[in-house]
Amino acid sequence: MGTIFLFEIMGTATLVLLGAGVVANVVLSGTKGNGGGWLLINFGWGLGVFAGVYVAYASGAHINPAVTVGLLASGAEEYAPGIAVTLPNTLAYFAAELIGAFLGAVVAWLAYKKHYDDETDPAAILGTFSTGPEKRSYGWNTVTEIIGTYVLVLLVLMMGETPAELGPLAVALVVLAIGASLGGPTGYAINPARDLGPRLAHAILPIRHKGSSDWSYSWVPIAGPVVGALLAGASVQIFPLLGAGAA
Amino acid sequence: MGTIFLFEIMGTATLVLLGAGVVANVVLSGTKGNGGGWLLINFGWGLGVFAGVYVAYASGAHINPAVTVGLLASGAEEYAPGIAVTLPNTLAYFAAELIGAFLGAVVAWLAYKKHYDDETDPAAILGTFSTGPEKRSYGWNTVTEIIGTYVLVLLVLMMGETPAELGPLAVALVVLAIGASLGGPTGYAINPARDLGPRLAHAILPIRHKGSSDWSYSWVPIAGPVVGALLAGASVQIFPLLGAGAA
Amino acid sequence: MGTIFLFEIMGTATLVLLGAGVVANVVLSGTKGNGGGWLLINFGWGLGVFAGVYVAYASGAHINPAVTVGLLASGAEEYAPGIAVTLPNTLAYFAAELIGAFLGAVVAWLAYKKHYDDETDPAAILGTFSTGPEKRSYGWNTVTEIIGTYVLVLLVLMMGETPAELGPLAVALVVLAIGASLGGPTGYAINPARDLGPRLAHAILPIRHKGSSDWSYSWVPIAGPVVGALLAGASVQIFPLLGAGAA
Amino acid sequence: MGTIFLFEIMGTATLVLLGAGVVANVVLSGTKGNGGGWLLINFGWGLGVFAGVYVAYASGAHINPAVTVGLLASGAEEYAPGIAVTLPNTLAYFAAELIGAFLGAVVAWLAYKKHYDDETDPAAILGTFSTGPEKRSYGWNTVTEIIGTYVLVLLVLMMGETPAELGPLAVALVVLAIGASLGGPTGYAINPARDLGPRLAHAILPIRHKGSSDWSYSWVPIAGPVVGALLAGASVQIFPLLGAGAA
Repeated sequence: MGTIFLFEIMGTATLVLLGAGVVANVVLSGTKGNGGGWLLINFGWGLGVFAGVYVAYASGAHINPAVTVGLLASGAEEYAPGIAVTLPNTLAYFAAELIGAFLGAVVAWLAYKKHYDDETDPAAILGTFSTGPEKRSYGWNTVTEIIGTYVLVLLVLMMGETPAELGPLAVALVVLAIGASLGGPTGYAINPARDLGPRLAHAILPIRHKGSSDWSYSWVPIAGPVVGALLAGASVQIFPLLGAGAA
Repeated sequence: MGTIFLFEIMGTATLVLLGAGVVANVVLSGTKGNGGGWLLINFGWGLGVFAGVYVAYASGAHINPAVTVGLLASGAEEYAPGIAVTLPNTLAYFAAELIGAFLGAVVAWLAYKKHYDDETDPAAILGTFSTGPEKRSYGWNTVTEIIGTYVLVLLVLMMGETPAELGPLAVALVVLAIGASLGGPTGYAINPARDLGPRLAHAILPIRHKGSSDWSYSWVPIAGPVVGALLAGASVQIFPLLGAGAA
Repeated sequence: MGTIFLFEIMGTATLVLLGAGVVANVVLSGTKGNGGGWLLINFGWGLGVFAGVYVAYASGAHINPAVTVGLLASGAEEYAPGIAVTLPNTLAYFAAELIGAFLGAVVAWLAYKKHYDDETDPAAILGTFSTGPEKRSYGWNTVTEIIGTYVLVLLVLMMGETPAELGPLAVALVVLAIGASLGGPTGYAINPARDLGPRLAHAILPIRHKGSSDWSYSWVPIAGPVVGALLAGASVQIFPLLGAGAA
Repeated sequence: MGTIFLFEIMGTATLVLLGAGVVANVVLSGTKGNGGGWLLINFGWGLGVFAGVYVAYASGAHINPAVTVGLLASGAEEYAPGIAVTLPNTLAYFAAELIGAFLGAVVAWLAYKKHYDDETDPAAILGTFSTGPEKRSYGWNTVTEIIGTYVLVLLVLMMGETPAELGPLAVALVVLAIGASLGGPTGYAINPARDLGPRLAHAILPIRHKGSSDWSYSWVPIAGPVVGALLAGASVQIFPLLGAGAA
């Protein structure tokens, strides 16, 4: 369990540091990457996953409760080599992922401290921490998060079945793709810890011009990813039966 | 045949979900990626292929009738390990690819539902589903689609002959390249299912401000890719003879 | 020699088709990628090399006379497995690379035919075929081409010595890098065939609003790359002696 | 030691040539990549590392004193196969990295000579050589450099522990990520030689409209990376104990 805590905290912190950082770079005033565009943001988050997976290799590199849920729902026996699927381990993953995401957001805030100090737009500040919808509709926003997370978790689960040796890069590219393609409406949380941890950091940190942490939306990037992960986990149990049964 | 249907539907749906999604993100009003540019679109489609190939690995990951046609024309004996080149299997691939592309477009529409509801430009809406030419000329548009598909299918067929181990990434990068380089005139269908499936979805779905589904153009992204694939399949049969014969 | 001609023609044609195509997409009026930016152009050329290397695998995938010259200057005994370094083979590579580059530009012109027909800026038209300097200075332009080609050929020669298995992707990324970093002054020919072949095509093709083919500049993207390749070939002969001698 | 000098000079020169080059392309007037954006710059530096690592493979491809410091702090016994961790070797790495970075900046200046001649903005000129903060605050700028370098060196050290075979590409992608995500405030030196070598070149080279070399800031991109590297080296010594101890 020490392995889970240490490496999932470090890996998720790396992910969120790079992810929150790229949004800060694009959104906060006076940065070198200001106005750098959506593809830049997609690269930051995608490669944040890439780096986070390397850091968290020893614990299976979930760095996302939706991946943990997806593995659980897929009927996996291990979360990583030597780490059994048990309730205490599951809770340890969840806790470590949330703590890591919180810490990553704090470190990103430190890296951009002077830019946060001078930023006067509360929406820009919140946008560097947690996700938010362009058109608020809890139902449809949840649908978008379900779809994005389903793609992510399905791919993560199926990559174990294919011979390509791209490892962390494959996951990174899928996250880049989901951001490019499905991130438009809600900013693609597709990871409950990635949203909740930084939102907590936003609520706690002493940022001069911050506004509300928008807690009324905060359940969407939790519920959507959990449902998407459950559906993906169920899919990989059903697919082999369908494919084989009809053959 | 269950394998073909299940995995080609899922894989092509993944491809079109991510492909239609990235265009929706760039083109529809009020998205986070609005105006994100051509390279962003190229990444979305290229990585859509990447994800789709992983999902459809068990059925050989055609996810494109042009690839099926190219394999047929190349004289291949199998469409995938254990799946013989037969007429019923060929038709199963075609049907599954079309169904998958249709479903992928429907899911992309669900992901961007609120943005479709508010979008008032019929051309923007159609552009997120199917391809269309910038300068309408059925002959030259077909030529462009032939050239793009020839490059795609030639590369897919030749990659089996080279020792590099990039797998799905190699195909994804070729699609990214074709989009960047040959997508300017027609939007690079290079895949009959990718165009026809979403066009059907556009015709059927209840979208408020949608206009015509432009059926008069719909044969171009079918005929062009089929001809390009036949030429590529023929090329890989002729090349070894030319190379060896002249040596 | 049949192998050299067939595969170098096909590979260089693929490279230039995708390279000329991406410039046409960014530069010509009314394309979907119009104004898409320098990084889009870099991706098109870089992945053009990626695709060209796959196509020309059987002949060692030079697809660039500078690579042929570099191998010659490095003291290599073979241009590819089974293809000896001889004068006839060297000339065959040069001829095939030039023919391929010419053909690739012709096919790119066909793919963008309607856009060429409507384009009224001769500089834009020429820019989709061959390279040209932003600030004309034959001496300094040649220096820029020497430096870019040196990096390319040095890397190609050194990649054979390293254990990484990225193959064609590694070369593609180096070309992308050279374009991003050293392409600013002259448009990075770094390949005599890539410039001369399309320039010949520009001179011959019936393009409505084309202007001069700028033959006065045409020797720069030949001389620069040849010198750069010779220096790179010499470097890989000298480096092991220096490294070992001083150890 | 000849191996260290030769390959670290060549590798670091390649890195800085491509890195300084991409900034020159984006920042200097009249280049083809002018205004090309932050992601273009990130690609140039990331792939500069990619190319530099290939060139410097024989000496372990540090090409960054922070990597040398990180290996030292991690308790490694060798800097590369056959190169022991000793004080003379450590100093040789530092010297070679600095010399290489200086030379790379000089060659980049030669490649963009005509553009430097015509550039009249001293800040643009300096920006192509060394890093500088958007909001000057020595303390917070140092924090930003510590964080970025920590991520880089931690990843470099941990990649040796994971089975993925991406080699130089993995390091390149991490540098791309750090640039995208943590480069906004200070321009991500994350490498003392990368900043000091070009700053020396800026001070020495005869550039018409250059201004101050801003030596008052020059200690930040040295101190920050050294501290970050020490922390990363310590982390990889502590992590296994924590993970194992608590298990």
